[in-house]
Formats: sequence, C-alpha cells, structure tokens
Amino acid sequence: MIYLDNAATTKPCREAVDAVMNACAEFGNPSSLHRLGLGAEKIIKNAKKSVADLMGAAPENIYFTSGGTEANNMAIFGAARASRKKHIITTKIEHPSVLEPFRRLEREGFFVDYIGVDAQGTVNLDELYKRLDSDAALVSMMHVNDETGTVQPVEEVRQIIKERAPDALFHIDAVQSYAKLPLQVKKLGADLISVSAHKINALKGCGALYIGQGRIEPLIIGGGQQKNMRSGTENVTGIAAFGAAARVHKADNRERIAELRKRLKDGIFERIPDVKYNGGESFSPYVLNVSFLGIKAEILLHSLEARRIYVSTVSACSSNKPMPSHVLSAMGCTPKEIEGAIRMSFDNTLAEPDIELALCALCDEVAKIRKYMR
Amino acid sequence: MIYLDNAATTKPCREAVDAVMNACAEFGNPSSLHRLGLGAEKIIKNAKKSVADLMGAAPENIYFTSGGTEANNMAIFGAARASRKKHIITTKIEHPSVLEPFRRLEREGFFVDYIGVDAQGTVNLDELYKRLDSDAALVSMMHVNDETGTVQPVEEVRQIIKERAPDALFHIDAVQSYAKLPLQVKKLGADLISVSAHKINALKGCGALYIGQGRIEPLIIGGGQQKNMRSGTENVTGIAAFGAAARVHKADNRERIAELRKRLKDGIFERIPDVKYNGGESFSPYVLNVSFLGIKAEILLHSLEARRIYVSTVSACSSNKPMPSHVLSAMGCTPKEIEGAIRMSFDNTLAEPDIELALCALCDEVAKIRKYMR
Repeated sequence: MIYLDNAATTKPCREAVDAVMNACAEFGNPSSLHRLGLGAEKIIKNAKKSVADLMGAAPENIYFTSGGTEANNMAIFGAARASRKKHIITTKIEHPSVLEPFRRLEREGFFVDYIGVDAQGTVNLDELYKRLDSDAALVSMMHVNDETGTVQPVEEVRQIIKERAPDALFHIDAVQSYAKLPLQVKKLGADLISVSAHKINALKGCGALYIGQGRIEPLIIGGGQQKNMRSGTENVTGIAAFGAAARVHKADNRERIAELRKRLKDGIFERIPDVKYNGGESFSPYVLNVSFLGIKAEILLHSLEARRIYVSTVSACSSNKPMPSHVLSAMGCTPKEIEGAIRMSFDNTLAEPDIELALCALCDEVAKIRKYMR
Repeated sequence: MIYLDNAATTKPCREAVDAVMNACAEFGNPSSLHRLGLGAEKIIKNAKKSVADLMGAAPENIYFTSGGTEANNMAIFGAARASRKKHIITTKIEHPSVLEPFRRLEREGFFVDYIGVDAQGTVNLDELYKRLDSDAALVSMMHVNDETGTVQPVEEVRQIIKERAPDALFHIDAVQSYAKLPLQVKKLGADLISVSAHKINALKGCGALYIGQGRIEPLIIGGGQQKNMRSGTENVTGIAAFGAAARVHKADNRERIAELRKRLKDGIFERIPDVKYNGGESFSPYVLNVSFLGIKAEILLHSLEARRIYVSTVSACSSNKPMPSHVLSAMGCTPKEIEGAIRMSFDNTLAEPDIELALCALCDEVAKIRKYMR
C-alpha cells in the first residue's frame, strides 16, 4: 500500500497508539477530586505542553476541542459574537469549517468580505488592504491550503491587520501546517490558531485552539472545564495521543519530504504529457496537486486504488458532495483542469521507492485511461 | 481498588479497548472516496446500529458528538434557534451542560422557566403543567439525575407536553440512564435524546444525540459530515469503542446492581448513625447519595481514597467549583446535609465483597472523622 492521502488523515504513529493504551488504563475523570482524576489531569497537562511546544506557545493558551472543525467554529463564532463590530473577513479558498460559519454569520447580520486569490492560490493582499478597516472584528485565513499546499503570507497579513485594523482578531487555520512547517506563534502573530490531531499521526476526534490575546465567546458550555472556554469531559485518550504525536514530530523531516515531493512532481512532468501544476511557489512539501487533462480525477483515483495507491480528488471533507473544487475555481482553473485534479499528500513514513512505484502507476493508468477515452 | 465513582466516568471495557485498537489500524478518513475511507465508514455504521439498538432507535436518527455536553448543547441551542417561539423550559436540577445553554439563551432573549422538584428530587408536574403553553419551543429534562439517581417521570411529562404544547420539542438528557435503565425511544416519546460513551465503559470524548422528529439547527458546521447535522471528521476510535460498549451492555445486569445498592444503603443505615438518604423512591440502581451529618464530604472522600475506595462529592463536572450542590439545594436539603453528601455510583464490574469492604471502610472513617471533630 502506498498512502498518498495524508492531508485527509494520517495513520496513528506507534507513540500515539501507546499513549491511547496508557490513557485507557488511567481512566479517571480529570475533574474528579480523587487520585484517579489527578492521573487523567496529568495526562492532559503533559499533552498540552507538547502540543503547545510544537508551535512555540505557552500551554495555558491551548484549549482542546473535538478536532479542527470545532476549533475553527469556536474561533470564528467566538470572536465574531464577542465583538460589537459587525465586519468579518476571510478568503475564498478556506476549508468548509471556516466558510460555513462565515455564511451563517452573514445570515445573522454580519458583513463578510471573501478575499480572492491569484492563479497560484495566494491571497490578494491589495484587496485585503482595501477591505480591511477599523470596523473589522476578525480576519480568518488558512496557513496552508488543504487542496493545493499553497502557503499564505500570514506574516504580511498580520502587518496589514496591524496597520488597518489593530483591534481585529487574527485567526489562522493551521490544520495543514502544524507539525509540517516551522510554526512559531510569535512570528505568525495570530490571536487564534486551529490545529488537528489526526493530520499529525494521532487520532480523529481531537484538535486544539490556541487562544492568545482577545476574548472569545465559548461555543460549548456547561461544567466549566478548560477554564470555562470549552466544557465537557476532556477526550483524555485523544489528547494523550495528540501529545505523543506532537512530541514525535519535533524532529520532523521536512527536507526529506520536500525531496520526495520534488521527485514525484518532476517525474510526472517528465513522463506524462498534458499535466498542470496547481499551486504556488511557496508551498508545503506535504501536498502536491496536479491536473491530468482530459481525465476525470475520480476514475484515476479508483484505478490507482486497484493498485493499492491512495490519492484524493478534492479535500476529504467535501468529497461526499460532488461539487467542483471552490479552491481551484477561485484560482481561475478551467473546468477541465478542475475535473482532472488529483491531490497527493505525504507523511514521514513514505520513502523513495514508494514514490517511484506511485510514479510508474500514475504513468500507466493515465495512459490507459486516456487511450480508453479516445 | 474499589471504584464507586462510575457516574463520573467508567473504566473502558475490554471490548471497547479492542475496538479502539482495530480502529487505529483502520485509519482512513470516513469521507474519503477510496477503500480506506470505506473501512472507517463501516466502523461508524456498525457502531451507530449498536448505539441505536440499545435505545430502540433507528440508526439514521443517531448523530455522534464529542460527548454528552456537546449533545446537550446541540439539542438545546439547536431546538431553540430553529424555532420562532421564545419560551423554553427546563428544571432546576439539570446538569450544567443543560443549565448553561438555557442561561445563555435567556440572555439572548428567550423566556425560560426552571421547574422545581420535591424533596425526592422529582420534578413538579403541576408546575410544569401550569408553565407549559403553546408558546413553548422546547422542554429539556434529564432522565436520571447524576447526583441522586432520581428517575424523572418522563412519560408523564411527554403526556403533559402533548396536551399543553404539542409543537414543543422534548429533549431528554439520558446520560445517566442510557445502558442502565431499559430505554425505548418510542416509550419515552422524546424528540431529542443525549447519551455519552464514557459513562457506559467506552471512551471520553464521544457521545451521541438521537434526533427524531423536529428540525434543529446544527451547532458545528463545515464539511457536511453526518448529513450536515454535525460536521467534522468523525472520532472513529471513540465511536468504535462506543458501539462495542453498547453491544456489551445489551445483556445488562441491572438487578444485580440493584441488589448491591440495596446492600450498601441498608448497611449504611444499619451501621452508621445520623445519615440521610438523598433521593427518590424511583431511582436508578447505579447511583446512591447519602449525607453523613456533621462531616465534610470532601474529608470523607479523601480518607476513603487513602484506602483506595473512590467516591465523589457532587458531580465531577462541577467539582472544580466549590459550590453547594444545586440539585440538593433544589430538593430542600439543609446546608449540613449538603455539606455531608457523598455519591456512590456503581458499574457491572463490582461484586458483593467490594460492597462489604466499602461499607466497613465507611463505618470506620465516618466514626474516626466524627470523633476527631468533637
């Protein structure tokens, strides 16, 4: 099996699975007053430190959620509803867990600007500059796009916010960059940062929101866990796995992954005609998006699957809805380019032979499908 | 170790842990189009059926959440915000994950009635009848109280709603009754039912909301998972464990637990003077709440802990906040009774010798503390 769908989800690493087993035994309720509760609380404390360390944050700024989607909802609804201002800003290429909250807030009376991107998928900074004013409550933007891997110039965005709307909160959806790009809270200058556990070889159903400056309204309320910001008994096993995976990722191998990506990309462009790279010059080494023109991506996906090679068409979260990619559309891709777009996404378990095999399979299958379709 | 704090959380059963291991290996994203995604989707489908079966529901009415707190928030915010009516009703003895959403909705302009209870903790049906009118959007009530084990007459409540406010949605917080009392959706007549995985020997961080009739607004939105009602990549491991634990609980041993509870209660009343039973005649066999007068419950908790016997004062979710129990207060307990109240809660792993040991320890420690305090 060659798994090239790591932007959708990753395989839990050994350390994460071990942490799960340990947390199953240490089963107390972290809110309990007795010793069993303290054991569970200690697991959470340790994991929080590891998750925080990997973004250069203080542990007390980390709040665990049920995943990236809840973290994004919590940040956006929380910042908008805690503010008296009614202007909020995002981009056209965000994940649905960002876009849907913005659409709901729009219906609730907020004024929303959706900033466009260029052909590489990079956000239009001039447009952002123009739209941004002191009335803005929130700017929300992803760090790395899940479909193309394009890296947004978040530090420049921070500068623009500082100049144009110093009171606005800045939310970064870092689900695809956390543990993959060097992430430093101070350098990013974000007030809110969403991350997800299952994208970094931990479990589905767990994530976190970094909350720095700025008050937000909690999304889920009740027993007052996590300093009243996120009620509900903590997902101790998921959190333990998240912490373990974060510790492993400290010694990441970004450069090796970049080499694998380059090899796959170069191979595709050398050996397969009529292909188009969808992405920017500033990219995450973990994602590669290529259009195979004249081919329906879903057919290629299934023919590769028959050879136990797993890729994806658009992001997994949207793949149940047969809609053309809103990301590639915003980048100005043609319908043909969108139809033939395949995302290949990497993780640390991949090695050169995997890439070579995937490349051969891609050459074969693309040629076969094209022959068949002529 | 004798663990009598099962209303706070339970130890994962072997079947749940096995299911977790299996789901860690079957790591695909359930939304992915390829085979790995289908494997994860199948795990969810199986678990959904098991969780539904245990309450006599259809699988398509089950929506997985991050726990009981999210399920309660989702039901209450979702029902209230989807309605044009502005009158909502609950009781004074609900869990904070119900009361806090009602308090927030009150601030948002809803009119809330908090129905009182009698000395046994049973909701005042006359008061409910009077308060309920056709303007009501929602009635939310727990089935079994987490602190006292008192069972609410939810079927009578359903009749009153039918008569007085046939359009109102009826939400039951069944976190403490699911897998513990015989639960049949049809008999309960509820439109919304919250359940939690970690209270039935599965993992923390997972729960479900049954949604029957009536439209509610989703709480967490984005990728459109779970028929758009609850977005976010599903917590596959937690869901797998929930399903496995639900299957085990089918052959429950309620009667044996009732016998253990009776033995503990009778033993306390025979051997320890100045005690008071806090609860009703209609009770869950899984919870026993007793006040040891003249004793601070926290001191007794820690002295039992030193003997590896774990009980609790008030519900774990509230125990970080040193507040007198709102449940016992609503039942008219005196400050002294509230101060000395201990909850002992059971699960299927307990046996008679455990109860006998716990009873001896209780006698010893209560006597010691009382002697010391004189």
